[in-house]
Amino acid sequence: MASKNTFDIVSLGNASIPSPIHLSKTAGEKIFSFVEDSDRMLMDVSLADFNSCIRNNTQPNCLEKAGPREALFFDPKSTTAAIVTCGGLCPGINNVIRSLFMALHYFYKVERIIGIRYGYEGLIPGNGHDFLEFTPDIVKDIHEFGGTLLGSSRGAQSVPEMVDALEKNKIDILFTIGGDGTLKGANAIGEEIEKRGLKIAVAGIPKTIDNDIDLLDKSFGFETAFDVASPIIRNAHNEATGAFNGISIVKLMGRDSGFIAASTAIAMPVVNFVLIPEIHFALDGPNGFLEALKKRINLKHHAVIVVAEGAGQNLFETGTEEVHDASGNIKHQDIGLFLKHRIKQYFDTIETKTTIKYIDPSYIIRSAPANANDSLFCNRLAHHAVHGAMAGKTKFVIGRLNNRFVYIPISKVVNQRKKIDMEGEFWFAVLQSTGQPFSMK
Amino acid sequence: MASKNTFDIVSLGNASIPSPIHLSKTAGEKIFSFVEDSDRMLMDVSLADFNSCIRNNTQPNCLEKAGPREALFFDPKSTTAAIVTCGGLCPGINNVIRSLFMALHYFYKVERIIGIRYGYEGLIPGNGHDFLEFTPDIVKDIHEFGGTLLGSSRGAQSVPEMVDALEKNKIDILFTIGGDGTLKGANAIGEEIEKRGLKIAVAGIPKTIDNDIDLLDKSFGFETAFDVASPIIRNAHNEATGAFNGISIVKLMGRDSGFIAASTAIAMPVVNFVLIPEIHFALDGPNGFLEALKKRINLKHHAVIVVAEGAGQNLFETGTEEVHDASGNIKHQDIGLFLKHRIKQYFDTIETKTTIKYIDPSYIIRSAPANANDSLFCNRLAHHAVHGAMAGKTKFVIGRLNNRFVYIPISKVVNQRKKIDMEGEFWFAVLQSTGQPFSMK
Amino acid sequence: MASKNTFDIVSLGNASIPSPIHLSKTAGEKIFSFVEDSDRMLMDVSLADFNSCIRNNTQPNCLEKAGPREALFFDPKSTTAAIVTCGGLCPGINNVIRSLFMALHYFYKVERIIGIRYGYEGLIPGNGHDFLEFTPDIVKDIHEFGGTLLGSSRGAQSVPEMVDALEKNKIDILFTIGGDGTLKGANAIGEEIEKRGLKIAVAGIPKTIDNDIDLLDKSFGFETAFDVASPIIRNAHNEATGAFNGISIVKLMGRDSGFIAASTAIAMPVVNFVLIPEIHFALDGPNGFLEALKKRINLKHHAVIVVAEGAGQNLFETGTEEVHDASGNIKHQDIGLFLKHRIKQYFDTIETKTTIKYIDPSYIIRSAPANANDSLFCNRLAHHAVHGAMAGKTKFVIGRLNNRFVYIPISKVVNQRKKIDMEGEFWFAVLQSTGQPFSMK
Amino acid sequence: MASKNTFDIVSLGNASIPSPIHLSKTAGEKIFSFVEDSDRMLMDVSLADFNSCIRNNTQPNCLEKAGPREALFFDPKSTTAAIVTCGGLCPGINNVIRSLFMALHYFYKVERIIGIRYGYEGLIPGNGHDFLEFTPDIVKDIHEFGGTLLGSSRGAQSVPEMVDALEKNKIDILFTIGGDGTLKGANAIGEEIEKRGLKIAVAGIPKTIDNDIDLLDKSFGFETAFDVASPIIRNAHNEATGAFNGISIVKLMGRDSGFIAASTAIAMPVVNFVLIPEIHFALDGPNGFLEALKKRINLKHHAVIVVAEGAGQNLFETGTEEVHDASGNIKHQDIGLFLKHRIKQYFDTIETKTTIKYIDPSYIIRSAPANANDSLFCNRLAHHAVHGAMAGKTKFVIGRLNNRFVYIPISKVVNQRKKIDMEGEFWFAVLQSTGQPFSMK
Repeated sequence: MASKNTFDIVSLGNASIPSPIHLSKTAGEKIFSFVEDSDRMLMDVSLADFNSCIRNNTQPNCLEKAGPREALFFDPKSTTAAIVTCGGLCPGINNVIRSLFMALHYFYKVERIIGIRYGYEGLIPGNGHDFLEFTPDIVKDIHEFGGTLLGSSRGAQSVPEMVDALEKNKIDILFTIGGDGTLKGANAIGEEIEKRGLKIAVAGIPKTIDNDIDLLDKSFGFETAFDVASPIIRNAHNEATGAFNGISIVKLMGRDSGFIAASTAIAMPVVNFVLIPEIHFALDGPNGFLEALKKRINLKHHAVIVVAEGAGQNLFETGTEEVHDASGNIKHQDIGLFLKHRIKQYFDTIETKTTIKYIDPSYIIRSAPANANDSLFCNRLAHHAVHGAMAGKTKFVIGRLNNRFVYIPISKVVNQRKKIDMEGEFWFAVLQSTGQPFSMK
Repeated sequence: MASKNTFDIVSLGNASIPSPIHLSKTAGEKIFSFVEDSDRMLMDVSLADFNSCIRNNTQPNCLEKAGPREALFFDPKSTTAAIVTCGGLCPGINNVIRSLFMALHYFYKVERIIGIRYGYEGLIPGNGHDFLEFTPDIVKDIHEFGGTLLGSSRGAQSVPEMVDALEKNKIDILFTIGGDGTLKGANAIGEEIEKRGLKIAVAGIPKTIDNDIDLLDKSFGFETAFDVASPIIRNAHNEATGAFNGISIVKLMGRDSGFIAASTAIAMPVVNFVLIPEIHFALDGPNGFLEALKKRINLKHHAVIVVAEGAGQNLFETGTEEVHDASGNIKHQDIGLFLKHRIKQYFDTIETKTTIKYIDPSYIIRSAPANANDSLFCNRLAHHAVHGAMAGKTKFVIGRLNNRFVYIPISKVVNQRKKIDMEGEFWFAVLQSTGQPFSMK
Repeated sequence: MASKNTFDIVSLGNASIPSPIHLSKTAGEKIFSFVEDSDRMLMDVSLADFNSCIRNNTQPNCLEKAGPREALFFDPKSTTAAIVTCGGLCPGINNVIRSLFMALHYFYKVERIIGIRYGYEGLIPGNGHDFLEFTPDIVKDIHEFGGTLLGSSRGAQSVPEMVDALEKNKIDILFTIGGDGTLKGANAIGEEIEKRGLKIAVAGIPKTIDNDIDLLDKSFGFETAFDVASPIIRNAHNEATGAFNGISIVKLMGRDSGFIAASTAIAMPVVNFVLIPEIHFALDGPNGFLEALKKRINLKHHAVIVVAEGAGQNLFETGTEEVHDASGNIKHQDIGLFLKHRIKQYFDTIETKTTIKYIDPSYIIRSAPANANDSLFCNRLAHHAVHGAMAGKTKFVIGRLNNRFVYIPISKVVNQRKKIDMEGEFWFAVLQSTGQPFSMK
Repeated sequence: MASKNTFDIVSLGNASIPSPIHLSKTAGEKIFSFVEDSDRMLMDVSLADFNSCIRNNTQPNCLEKAGPREALFFDPKSTTAAIVTCGGLCPGINNVIRSLFMALHYFYKVERIIGIRYGYEGLIPGNGHDFLEFTPDIVKDIHEFGGTLLGSSRGAQSVPEMVDALEKNKIDILFTIGGDGTLKGANAIGEEIEKRGLKIAVAGIPKTIDNDIDLLDKSFGFETAFDVASPIIRNAHNEATGAFNGISIVKLMGRDSGFIAASTAIAMPVVNFVLIPEIHFALDGPNGFLEALKKRINLKHHAVIVVAEGAGQNLFETGTEEVHDASGNIKHQDIGLFLKHRIKQYFDTIETKTTIKYIDPSYIIRSAPANANDSLFCNRLAHHAVHGAMAGKTKFVIGRLNNRFVYIPISKVVNQRKKIDMEGEFWFAVLQSTGQPFSMK
C-alpha cells in the first residue's frame, strides 16, 4: 500500500472534552454509536477502481465519515458559534441556519450562537451591521420561509479584518453557508487563523443552487429549484401550445453547469431543447439549433426550450456586432433574450409566423422555501457540520458522496466546478427525454 | 314610470322547443325552476338609487337574470355549436370549454360541438386550421390544465369571411371566449349575421385576466392570477430582505387597470408600493415616488414594489429621450425595467448602495390552471351561457353583477374598461395595507 | 312609505372625535370619502322586490354600508382593543387578527391591543391564560400560517364573568372571531355591557368554514376550504380509478349545510355524488342512493362520493340498531364510515367486488393558510370591523352582501343558518355537474 | 480471490441484435458509451470493507451497472412489451409507465406496447379486463396525474395462468411495477417461463411508498410521500397549537418500517414524537410514551405525534381485551385510533383537559402526482429497466444503490424488507429533531 490520503481533515488540536450527547460506544444497544475519526468512505465505488487499487497496490481515495465524535475540542459552556450566509439566495438556507442552531443549542448546549448579518460584510465593523443573538424563538418558524434570515451579500472582504472580528468577538466556530467564492473565503479565513495560531474552527455548508460543487452528490436547494421550476415549464408549455407555432423559452439558473435545466427537462417532459453551458452549439448551419427548431415547429407547431443562463457564451464571442446593433448591451449577457431575438429573426427570414414567449423565473425559484427532501437534507448537513466543528475540525465542508455524509477539506471542493458529463448517462437521459439532436454543431 | 330598459337581450326569434331539462315550474317541489325572461336584477343596489328612482318616477337599470329557459330556440338534435378562444391566456379557459361542452352534450344533448383552433384565425379557411370535433374523452381532464386546448390568437379577422365559415359549416351557436377585442368582434359577427338574416346565436364569455370588463363583479381567471402571484410576491420579499437595501420590483398584468397588482398587495401584505395605470405618479420631486422609496429604504432597508404593466405611461411621454439614450427600445415599453433603471440611477446619485431585483412573472401566471373558486365560476358562467344561447339569445355576454348571474348585451360591456375607483374603498384598502403615500405627485 | 328598518346598528353614543385618517369629504379629490351612517344597501336586488315595494309603498330592507366614519366614539390614544378567536379552526383567522391589529395600530394609532388566549376561556381568570400584548413584530408573518395565533376553545363561558374581565382590564372594544355560538355569546356580552351601562363595543367577524352564516354572500375561509379540498378530491378520483369498481368516499365539512361539498364538486368535476344535510336521501329502494351508485359502478367501474359531515342524519334514526351491531358507537355519528359500511354491505350482497376508500381530510383543510382571495377578504372584513367599532357601533358583525361590505346586527345573523336552496340554481349546478339523480328517495 | 458473485443477472440468451441507439463505443467522443455487462459497482463503500476484502482475499459484493447495451436480445421490430401495475397507489407510477413507453417506442422502436389492466388480475382472462394498446397520445399527459392509468389490484394470481396469457398474447417482455408481493410474483412468473423454456423477460420496477425495498437507496414515490405529508404535519401543528393542551396525531404510511414518518418529522420539524414499527415502546410506566407526552404537554401545552401505521403492534397483543371492550374491531388494527383512545383515557385519568385531533391522510398522499425529483427518478428507473430487458436480462429489478443505477436479481431484494437502523445516524437525526426520549420502555 502506498500514497498518502490527501483528503484528511485538519484539526485544531486534541479533542478531549466528553460529548454531552449520550450515545453508545458499542453495537447492539439499539442506539447510535459515535463515529471514529478513522471511519472512511471510498470515493470511487466501481469494481474497476477496486481492482486497479489491488493491481497497483494503492490505497483508494477516501473521505472521512461525518457524525458525532465522542470527544470534543470545544467546551460547549464557553463556546461562541457564529453563522454567516453569503452569495445568492437558495432554497434551504433558513433550514440550515435553524438546524445549526438546534444542534448547537439543544444537543451540545452551546452557550452563545450569533448570526452575522449580510454575509461577510457583517464581519467588517465599518458596515455597521450588528450581530443577531439567536434564540429558539427567532429560529422557530424560519424553516417555512425562503431567503435568509440573516441577509446576504456578494463579494470578498478583507480576510485579516474578518479574522480580527472573529477574534475580538471571541467567536470559536464560524459556520459559512455559501458557494465557491464563499468557501474560498472561508479557507482563507481558516489559513489566517492558522497563521495567527488561533483556535477557531471554520466549517462550510456548500450552497449552490446550480449543484456544481465538485465531488458531491448534490447541494441543498437544488432539488427544490427544479421542483419549483417544473410547473413553470408546464405553464410555459401551455403558452407554447396556446398559439400556432408557439415557442416558449425559459431561462433557468446554471452559470457553468446545466444541472437545473437538465433535471427540470427530465422531470417535466414537455421540453424539446435543453441548452446548457457544457454543450457547444451553433445557431446556424444545417446541424445548428435553428434548423433543429424549425423541424420541430413544422412537425408539431410548438416548442419549449430551456436554456441555462451560462449556455451559449461562445455565440456572443462570434456574434458581438450583430447583437450590438439590434438591441444594446443587455442582450450581450442574456442568452435568453439573445435566443429570443435570433429565433424571431430566423423565422421572420423564412417567413414562418411564430409567437415567442420568454420567461426568466430565476428570482422566484431561488427565493422559494425548501421542499421536504431538501429540508431533510439541510437538517442533516447542518447537524454533521456541528458535529465536525465541535470536535475541532476546521477548513472542511460537510457534503454527501455516494449517499454518505462525509467531511471534505474545503480546498478539495473549490478547485473546479462540477459539470454534467457529456459522455455520462445523465445527459444521455436528457437527450432521450427531449428528443433533441445529440449534436447541434 | 318611464324610460325603456336599454339592457334588453336580443333574441333570434320565438323560443318554442321544450327544454330537455326536467325542471320545476312552480316553487315547493324541491327542484330548481326555469328562469323567466322577465326576471330582472337591479344594477345599482344602493338605497340612494332606489329613492332616486321613486323621486323621479323612473325605472331602475336592470339586467336579465341568467338561467335555463323552459322553451328553446334551437332544437338540440340538429344543432351545431362552436367554441373559439381568443387573446392571451388566462386561467380557466379550459374549464369554460369543458363546461360548455358538458352543458351542451349532457344537459341539452346537442348533436355536434366543434372547437375552432387558434382563435378567430381558425374561422378563416386560408389559415388551414381544422376544426376539432369535441367528445367527452377530449375534454375529460382539461380542467386540470392551464392554457387553452384550442389554441388562441390575437387580432381581428374579416367579419364577413368568419360569418361565411359559420354559415358554410352550419354552425348554429358560436361561443366566444375572449376579452374586449374579441367581444367587439363577436358583436360585429352578430351584426353581420343579423344583416344576412341568419339564425346563428353569438354568446360571449368575457375573458380578461386584468378583471377590467365593465359592469361585472369579476372576470374568470382573475382570482387565480393573484393567487398565483401571491407566493411570487412572498419570494420577492425574501429577495428584498436577503440583501442590505434590497429592492424587489415585480411587474404584474394590468394594461389599463391595476386590479391584479392591488389585490395581490392586499392578499400578500409585504408590498410597500403599488403602482397602477389609474394613478399618475411622479418619480422625482419631494412628493415623488423615489423620495418615498428612499424614506422606506432608510427606515427598513428593504422594499417590495408591485407595478402593473400599464402603469406610469406618462413617465415615458415626458422622458422619452433620456430613456432612449440609456437602454434602447425595450425600456420604452417596459415600466418594470424602466423603474429598475431609474431607481438604480437615483440611489447611485445619492450614494446609497442597493440591490435591485426585477421579476416579470406574467407568462407563468396567466398560463396556470384555475384555482377552485375560479373553476367553479367558470363552470357556472359556461352553463349560463349555454342556457341563454339555446334559448336563442344572441350578442350577449354572461357575467356576474352584485353576486348574481346575468345576461348583458355585448355592446354594453365593451364601451369602456373597468378601472379601480381612486375614490373607492378598494384603493383605500391598498393604501392602508401598503402604507404608501396617498399621492406621489 | 312605512315600516321601520329593523337592521339598524346600535351605537354606544355620540361619535365626536375626529378620525385620524385623512380622507376626503367630497367627491373628485381622487381620494376615498368617509362613509355616512345613513348610507344603505338593498338586501333584495331583484326588480320584483323593487316593484313590490313601490306597489305596497314599503321601504326595502337595507343594511348599513361599512367603511371609515369621519367621527369616532373612541379616542385612540386611550383605547384598548382586544381580540378573541373561538370555535374550530378556519383558514384566515390569522389574517383577520393581523389586519385588525394593523388597522387599529397604524391607521387609528390605538394605544393598546391585546389578544385573549384560547377563546372565551381566556376571559375567565380561573383558566390562567395570560393576555398577549400585540406588537407589529408578533403579527408580521402570521398571515402565512393557518390556525390561530391566539389559540381557541369551544363552548360558552359565564357572560358576567367575561364582562367583569373586560371591565377590569379596561378593554374598550372586543373583536370576536367565531361562528354562530361565538356570535350569540358576543351578543350576550353586548347586552350585559348595556345592562351595566358600560361603553364597550362588541364587534363580530363571522367565522364559519361551512359558509352558513345567514344573509351573507360568503364567510372567510370557505373558499380556501374547497380550494384545499379540490386536489384531495382529484387524488380520491385517482384512488377510485386505481382499482376495478373503485369507490372513494370523501367526507368534507358541513354540519348543517353542504356548501363546501357542493362547491368542491363543481370545482373538481370528477365527483359523481354529493350528499349534503339539505337533501333527504334513502339508501335502499329503487330510487335510493345505493341503486344509483350501482348503476354508476356498472357503467364506469369507479365512483367518487363527497359527503358533508352533517348529511344523512335521518339514516341513523331509522337504522340505529343495525349500525350498533356492526361497528359500535363511532359510526353512529360518522356518516362517512356509515356509508362505507353500507356500501360494502350492499355490493357484497349483490356479489360485486368493490374497493372502497374512505377519506376524512377535515382537520387538514381547516388548518390550512388562507388562499389569496380569502386573505384579501379577511383584510377587508377586519378593516371594516375596526372602522365600525371605532365609531362606537356595537353588537354588529361585518359581512358582505350582494358584493358590498355592510354592518349587520348580530341578532339578525344568528337566527338561523344559511343553507343551500334546493330550488336554487346553485344546487342545480351541482346536479348538472355530477349527473346524480335529482331525487334519491 | 474467491467466492462467486451471487448478484449476477440471469439472461435469456445471447444478445446479438445491434441496438438502434447510436452511442459511442469509446470515450472522448462527447457522447455516452454503451455499458458493458461486466461493469460492476461495489455494494459496501466503506474503507473497512475494502480492507477486509484485501485481508481475506475475497471479492467485494458487487452489482451490475445499469444502462444501454450495444447488443440486444430482442428485435424491436417483432417485440411486444407489456406493463402491469400492482398493489397500492404510489406517486410516480404514471411517470414510470410513460417513461417505459417512451424508451420502448422512441429509442428502441418497439412495435407493440400494451398495458395490462388492474394488476395481475388483468392477466387472468376470466376477469374480462381487456389490454390497453399504448400510443403516444395515451401517455402524453399522464405524468401530471397521480394514481395509475392502468388500474391496479392486490393479491396473487395463478402463475401458470398468467404465463399462459403472456404466451398466448406473444408478450416478449413484462414490466411489473409493484412492491414486495408483486416482485415475488414476477420472480415466480420468471421461473415458470424458464421451466417452459420460453424467451420472455421479466423486469421489475420496485414500488413501495414505504421505501422498504432491501438494498436500495430509495424507492420512487417515497420522497413525494413525505413532501405531501409535510404541509399536513404543519397543519396538524396548527391544530395542536390552536387549543390549550392540543394534541395532534398523524398516522402515516409504514407497515414494517418508518421511513415516511421519520423523514417527515425531520423535514417539518414541529413533530415531538415519531412512533415507528422499528421501535418497541410502552405506553405506561415511568419511561413510557404517555409519561413523556405528559411532560411535553405540561411544558408547552401542545404536541404533534406522527405514528407509522405499523407501529406499536406489540401494544395490541398485550392489550387485546381492553381495546375490544372500548370500541370494537377497527381499533385493533388502527394504531392511530388506539393511541387517540389511550391518550384521552390517560389524560382524563390525571384530570388534564386535552383536545386531541386524529388525522389519517394516507390515501391523499399515495394518490398524489410525483414531485420533480421523483419524476426524474421514475424516468431514469424506467429507461434503465428497458435497457436491461431489451438486452435479454430477466428476473431483475432496476434500482439505485450508492447513488448508482444497478440491476439486481429480484430474489435478492425480496428476502427481507429494509428497515430504519435503530443504531444508525438517520434515526439519531430523528431523535435529535424531535427531542423525544431515546427509549420509551
